Amino acid sequence: MRKFPACGPAPGRVRARWAWPAAAMASLFGGVEGGGTHSRAVLVSGDGQILAEVEGPCTNHWLIGSEECLRRIERMVSEAKGRAGADPRVPLRSLGLSLSGGDQEDAVGKMKEELRRRFPHLSQSYVITTDAVGAMATATDHGGIVLISGTGSNCKLINPDGSETSCGGWGHMLGDEGSAYWIARQAVKAVFDCMDNLRAPPHDVAYVRQAMFDYFQISDRMGLLTHLYRTFDKSKFAGFCQKLAEGATLGDPLCCHLFTKAGQALARHVVAVLPKTHQSLFLGDLGLPIVCVGSVWKSWERLQAGFVPALSAGRREAPGGVFSRFSLLKLKRSSALGAAGLGARSAGVALPLDRRANVEVFYAHRF
Amino acid sequence: MRKFPACGPAPGRVRARWAWPAAAMASLFGGVEGGGTHSRAVLVSGDGQILAEVEGPCTNHWLIGSEECLRRIERMVSEAKGRAGADPRVPLRSLGLSLSGGDQEDAVGKMKEELRRRFPHLSQSYVITTDAVGAMATATDHGGIVLISGTGSNCKLINPDGSETSCGGWGHMLGDEGSAYWIARQAVKAVFDCMDNLRAPPHDVAYVRQAMFDYFQISDRMGLLTHLYRTFDKSKFAGFCQKLAEGATLGDPLCCHLFTKAGQALARHVVAVLPKTHQSLFLGDLGLPIVCVGSVWKSWERLQAGFVPALSAGRREAPGGVFSRFSLLKLKRSSALGAAGLGARSAGVALPLDRRANVEVFYAHRF
Repeated sequence: MRKFPACGPAPGRVRARWAWPAAAMASLFGGVEGGGTHSRAVLVSGDGQILAEVEGPCTNHWLIGSEECLRRIERMVSEAKGRAGADPRVPLRSLGLSLSGGDQEDAVGKMKEELRRRFPHLSQSYVITTDAVGAMATATDHGGIVLISGTGSNCKLINPDGSETSCGGWGHMLGDEGSAYWIARQAVKAVFDCMDNLRAPPHDVAYVRQAMFDYFQISDRMGLLTHLYRTFDKSKFAGFCQKLAEGATLGDPLCCHLFTKAGQALARHVVAVLPKTHQSLFLGDLGLPIVCVGSVWKSWERLQAGFVPALSAGRREAPGGVFSRFSLLKLKRSSALGAAGLGARSAGVALPLDRRANVEVFYAHRF
Repeated sequence: MRKFPACGPAPGRVRARWAWPAAAMASLFGGVEGGGTHSRAVLVSGDGQILAEVEGPCTNHWLIGSEECLRRIERMVSEAKGRAGADPRVPLRSLGLSLSGGDQEDAVGKMKEELRRRFPHLSQSYVITTDAVGAMATATDHGGIVLISGTGSNCKLINPDGSETSCGGWGHMLGDEGSAYWIARQAVKAVFDCMDNLRAPPHDVAYVRQAMFDYFQISDRMGLLTHLYRTFDKSKFAGFCQKLAEGATLGDPLCCHLFTKAGQALARHVVAVLPKTHQSLFLGDLGLPIVCVGSVWKSWERLQAGFVPALSAGRREAPGGVFSRFSLLKLKRSSALGAAGLGARSAGVALPLDRRANVEVFYAHRF
């Protein structure tokens, strides 16, 4: 099991306490953002102050199994309690979990049951939602679109009335289009197909091939099979995307091409949910708000060449011809914060989270 | 572990003996055909007679791990010895293994070492090759193309001088185009993308969607995630292709479309190796001989609409403009027979295998 890297909370947002009285623990609210590569836990007080933040590894139960997932969550939250100066044996008032892979009712029900059974001191109550719902709850309570492109990808529309529509989010065997995993796989596939003479690559593969050999520390293509079958680690495989982002920055045409394709794929997820999008979401100050979550968005300048034209081409899918603007927003705080808010709400407490301060617009477009 | 279904040898080809003298055991030659779903072991006498055949489950080490792969091989071969009336404690003269996934030098070396160490009574010597090489050795010793489409897919050209070129064979994470797994995944993906509004399907998905729910015994799409991630079994997933073949036979347009696409994909594997194909292979009685292995070829009538045009379109890749005809051949006997021949050859024995009797042409085409 990987060591959790320590990650101190942002300065000025945290109250440090060395002893947190047990009575007050009932007013501590936890939140977890669970990704396919990294996770994060926060503890929040009833007045919305962040008391502790802890980073952890992948907590996608499809990738690591429920057992390990629960263990990792418990460990992160307990560590957060310790950092906040709270007694780990006293349960939180609530724990909201915003998990990649947290959208199967049966699995979610079982996870809650197991958390209660195995870790009775962890929290009084639990809410488990998807990573997308947690991100949205962090950014706004008016609804919008969350478009995730991290290890995997996923898109969720949440209308102002709470109705939801998803596109994607089926994992690397069926989807994940536009994600780091997908970009990495497209790159590797282009090299394999070129070397097999099965398909001509759109651009020379030399840079990507060498980067692949270097990243996976292999001397031939056979070496990659171990990474794909024997010791498959989605997060590790997806990590190759970082090298491709570097290649794109250096101007390698194939790397640039892959990010353009990823941008197209991500935009198509938005187009897919446009028919279900309430008109009011197009008409706010920002136009359609799209909350972009995940590390692939760091390469927005590379995605843009595919994203904007593909979204433009799909505009007519929106009802009433009102889709004339959109804004891309990124979270300045972890989705764990929104997850904490959702957990608190289900326990009857409205945490005063300043959602506007949690997001910033990084791109705005008018068609 | 699955039970090995009994499979008697073909009538009239087997000498039944209740007691096989230990001295004669040194002239018994074993062969194994290892697939992603089924496997088969044969024992052959020095005069080329098949003494026993045994069926078994998947022996692809990438799918089940080396440990289980070796156990299954040992079990099949020991059972075959028993059926031939031979003493299981007396080693065979040689054992040829023609395995899907048997093409990584390191892994193959380790497997031989382990077989010797753990099962000293199994065989005096070992040869491990790919499923394609075993199939070719069963069909001819003049070379040609082997095109496998079973659970996975793979293409190998073997020239008359023994030089080899491959295309594909990288497994379900990177390739397997045109295989049962690939067809099943394409079908499932079409349903998911349609329901997500991510991509319009080429034909109505209703038949395939219902077939998917029935085959995987699920009531919604979420139910499929367990099959893909928690309890992934490539062979089980690929088995859905059988239901799609039935749909194609009933005339469902989406099922027919998927097999046409598979035919195109398989033909492109042949096109990929054309530039390396020796001219003499085009000039025999049959034109280019393509040995077709795997259960997907049972649907040749569905594949044909994609295969022939795609091969026709790629003809110019062949050197010298001599590619004017091809024949598709299927094996009448298991590739285990060819594997036994390869094993014997490496032990200095030329088994008299009547290769012409092992194959038949099921389709011939002149452009």
